[in-house]
Formats: sequence, C-alpha cells, structure tokens
Amino acid sequence: MKYCFGVDIGGTTVKIGLFTTEGELLEKWEIKTRTENHGEAILPDVAESLQNKMQEKNIRKSEVDGIGIGIPAPVMEDGVVQKTANLGWGYKEVTREMKELTGLPVAAGNDANMAALGEMWLGAGKGQKNMIMVTLGTGVGGGIIVNGKPLAGSHGAGGEIGHFCVNEEETETCGCGNTGCLEQYASATGISRLARRRLERDDSPSPLRGSEISAKAVFDALKEGDAVAKEIVEEFGSYLGHALAAIAVITDPSVIVIGGGVSKAGEILLEYVEKYFHEKAFFANQDTRFVLAQLGNDAGICGAAKLIL
Amino acid sequence: MKYCFGVDIGGTTVKIGLFTTEGELLEKWEIKTRTENHGEAILPDVAESLQNKMQEKNIRKSEVDGIGIGIPAPVMEDGVVQKTANLGWGYKEVTREMKELTGLPVAAGNDANMAALGEMWLGAGKGQKNMIMVTLGTGVGGGIIVNGKPLAGSHGAGGEIGHFCVNEEETETCGCGNTGCLEQYASATGISRLARRRLERDDSPSPLRGSEISAKAVFDALKEGDAVAKEIVEEFGSYLGHALAAIAVITDPSVIVIGGGVSKAGEILLEYVEKYFHEKAFFANQDTRFVLAQLGNDAGICGAAKLIL
Repeated sequence: MKYCFGVDIGGTTVKIGLFTTEGELLEKWEIKTRTENHGEAILPDVAESLQNKMQEKNIRKSEVDGIGIGIPAPVMEDGVVQKTANLGWGYKEVTREMKELTGLPVAAGNDANMAALGEMWLGAGKGQKNMIMVTLGTGVGGGIIVNGKPLAGSHGAGGEIGHFCVNEEETETCGCGNTGCLEQYASATGISRLARRRLERDDSPSPLRGSEISAKAVFDALKEGDAVAKEIVEEFGSYLGHALAAIAVITDPSVIVIGGGVSKAGEILLEYVEKYFHEKAFFANQDTRFVLAQLGNDAGICGAAKLIL
Repeated sequence: MKYCFGVDIGGTTVKIGLFTTEGELLEKWEIKTRTENHGEAILPDVAESLQNKMQEKNIRKSEVDGIGIGIPAPVMEDGVVQKTANLGWGYKEVTREMKELTGLPVAAGNDANMAALGEMWLGAGKGQKNMIMVTLGTGVGGGIIVNGKPLAGSHGAGGEIGHFCVNEEETETCGCGNTGCLEQYASATGISRLARRRLERDDSPSPLRGSEISAKAVFDALKEGDAVAKEIVEEFGSYLGHALAAIAVITDPSVIVIGGGVSKAGEILLEYVEKYFHEKAFFANQDTRFVLAQLGNDAGICGAAKLIL
C-alpha cells in the first residue's frame, strides 16, 4: 500500500490528511497556522507534523508518493506564491521549500482549485473530467476542472469565479476593488446584503424583519413559504445561474458542483440556480448537471492529495 | 525530416497544409467541400488529396506523424461529431473514418480551437501556454488554450466566446436562440448593427450616412476622426473588452489574440478593446497582453497540424 498527504493551509488552521493512493482517507488532523514573522513557521510546522505521523504509523519515505498543498492564494505552476492575504507570506517557493524540509515530492495549488479537484476525485464530481465548482462561503470561491486537471492559468489565478462581473450597474465596491462581482451577491454576506436591500425597499411583512439577517435565515424563511425571502433567493439565483451559464459557454462542464456554508440550504438552492442557468445557457450546455458538494471541509485535503498523484 | 498534415474543413472549401513537425509550412492548397449526400465525400476527398500529395512529394507513410483536422462544429475528445451546421454531416466518427481511409494517426478538434492552437504554435501567441483567441468575422469565434492545450470541454463546445452573454437587456435574438450574445455586438454584422442603431438615434453628421454600413466603414471613419464612428467603436470596445475581462477571470490568460476580418482594422481596434478590458479586469489579469492574430486563414491548418504532434 502506498500513501500520500493532502495539506490545506488556511489562515487559522492547517488541515492535513493521510490518504492511500487509491483515495481512502485514513486519518485527518489539524495544526495551528502560525502566521507571525511572515508565516515563517508554517511550512516547517507542517513538515514536522507529517514526519511525526509517518513515525507514529511506521510509514517509510519510500512508501509515500508525495505531498500536495492547497494555499489560499494564486499559485504558479512551479509552486511559487507571490503574495498571500492571510498567511503572512510574500514571495515564497512553496514546493521547493517543502521538498527540502521533507525530502518528498511536493505539488502545490490554489485552495479553491484543490477543493474542486477533491470533489472530482472522491465527491460530487466523481468520474467527471470537466467541472465547475463554486464555494459559497463568506466569499465566493471557485475551481474549474478541465480534462481532469485544475485550470490554474498563467498566474495561478484561474477560476476566480467570485470576481466574475455580474452587474455593471453596481456602485458598492467588492473586496477586490472592482464593482459588481458575483461575490457581492452570492456569498453569505452577499445574500444578507440582497436581503437588507429588499427589506428596506418597502414594508411588506416577513419573518426576516427584526431578527438578524443571514443567508441561513433567508433560506429558512423561504422554506417556511415567505414571499419576501423567495424574492431574495430569486435574485440570488439569477445572479449565480446567469453567471454559471456564461462560464459554462467558456468551459463546457458536464457537472457544476455547489459547496460552501450557504449550500447547506440544500436542494432548494440548486432549484433556484438551475432555473436561471437554463434560462441563459447555450444550447450545448443545457444538459449540464447541478449537484451539491459532498466532501465539506475535507474537499481541500482530498484535492491536494490528488494533485500529487 | 518528419511531416504532418493540417486540414481545415469549411463549408465551401477544405484547406490543407503539409508541415514539417518542427512547424514549417511546406505547401498549402485547397479542395472543394462536397456537402451533398450528407457530406459523404468530404473525408474520402481529403484522404485522396493527401495521398496524391504524398505520392507527388515521394513521402512515405512512415515519415508522416499524422493528420489533424479542424471541423466547424463541436468535436468530442474521441473525434466524434454529433451534428454540423454546414457540412451536411450528422453523427460522424471523424478520426475513426479518416484513420481507416489513410492508415495514419488522426486527431480532430473544433476549427476555432484549432485556429487558437495555430496562433499559439506559430503565430501571435508563440511561446505562451494560456491564451484566449477571439475571431471577429461574420460571427464571433473563440478558442481558449489552457496549459498549451485547447479547452474542448465535455461536449467539445468549450470556448464559445461568441455566445457569451454581454447584455441582459437585448431584445433581438442571436442565431443561437439566446439574446445578448457577444456575437451580436462584436462581429462584422454586430458592428454594422451598432452603427445603424447609433445613426438612427439622431441626425449628427457622419460620413457613415448614405453609404453602405460595414465594420470596415466604421473603422475607416474612426481613422478619419469621425465622432459618431468613435462612439460606435467605444460601444463595440466596451462589450468586447468587458467580456474578455470576465473570461480572463475564469481562464487567466497571459495573452489575448484578436483575429478575423474585423481585426484588419489594426492596432486601433486593440486600443479600444484594451481600454475597457483594463476598466473591468481583476487585478491578477491586468498584465494580460493584447495582440493581433498573425496567421490569417492559415491559423486553422497550423493548429490542426499541431494537434496531432
């Protein structure tokens, strides 16, 4: 039996998984992400944790195919990161450093792309080779799989679906500096913003009034039959569905996987997105399937592990 | 020296090129596309023409790496076409049939993707691995290169840039059945349509009045300093530039190549597209370069030849 490691580096914790090369997740654990001093301890901490695990499990170096690493930043093909928003790193040769620390083969990629790859390997996109994954969390992340491989692009910035422009009329600014990005409407915070705007427009009664507004509250109210919540979800669905139709005409996926905290709303979310997708999709893309992500927080370590295989 | 053939099948003629595997175009010629009887003669005609050329040049089968074929339709990865708009073909196993006819290795792809691959191999995208190519002709064609390979997608319908939605308010219908496709604004006919709409709006004087309106006439008037033509080209530039910014956030190209008849307007066209691209592009894509296509009508045979290598 051969092994590989999948590592998903986040701003507060690093998730690590030990896999067989056949795709069985044997064990997973977390360590703290120490971002102080430009995050200089992060990779050594990971290396140490992997070596401890190998010792504990009596796994020899020759039995490990390698280490895949997901990073919350654009990652160049050669495993170089130019800048990260929340790890403290500036320019960093991630794969080279990790190779030196462990003596094992290393590959690195963007964390959203790794999550997509993970869902393709072991989750909702199993058996598919052309896939779009959208992660609806605090922000909107994306990963695109083309012919079985993550679309990294020339700067490692491929598949930045959250910053796909969906509204040229928007006046509020997105975190990226542009206006009208998908993230401003389809993330958890985006849905709350749509809800607040809708509630301010008139006085129509809704259980959403008076309580704290969240994406979850909106979908809960929708499930209770609230008409105002339905309007908000229709608007969310039209932004996301139309954006996915436009992205599909470019990447021609067989399946679109929707994950992230917001997707916990369940199948009802897909309904509203699919309706608007079909309204705008090119005829060749009309048979694209929509599915909910299956791996949750494990998608990142799964995809990272797959990257090294 | 080893050889390969690039074949570009169009609705009226088939273009064929004989290449060295190093990328020298040794000879090119055309044969008629016989579309009658469901286009049953097309592939046998091509095979005969290739065999005649090999005989003429004293080229043995063992010296030919293979045949690449570009087809004006979606092409699946296994070289199967489901339907063509103007060759008469229904379901057709193109690579299998051509292999049987010639005894040589065969690969097939969509013609717009082949043109993009050709520009990457021998033209404006030389040395690049991530590229968008847009062909502005009667329609708008597109080809996307990801990590050196054409993005074919799950139905062979990847990179259909002409049917990327750029205007949700449009009421006129595109040839594909949708409304607001890029092709309705950025093709030669699209630019004429923008021009007619602009001229009808008021009486401002312009050399475009009274003469036949064409994309060429609009760009010629722009070069003469006509203010109305400038407004039309600004509108064209904003549709195409914003669309390319949105596509770039998905595919992260290092270079965008613009070709087709409309691109004969020259560098001035790039100026107007780039301006609007930068207005909307994600920060990571701001250094994407714009260049005019270099291979003209040869792009298709070049890319087809490259596909087999």
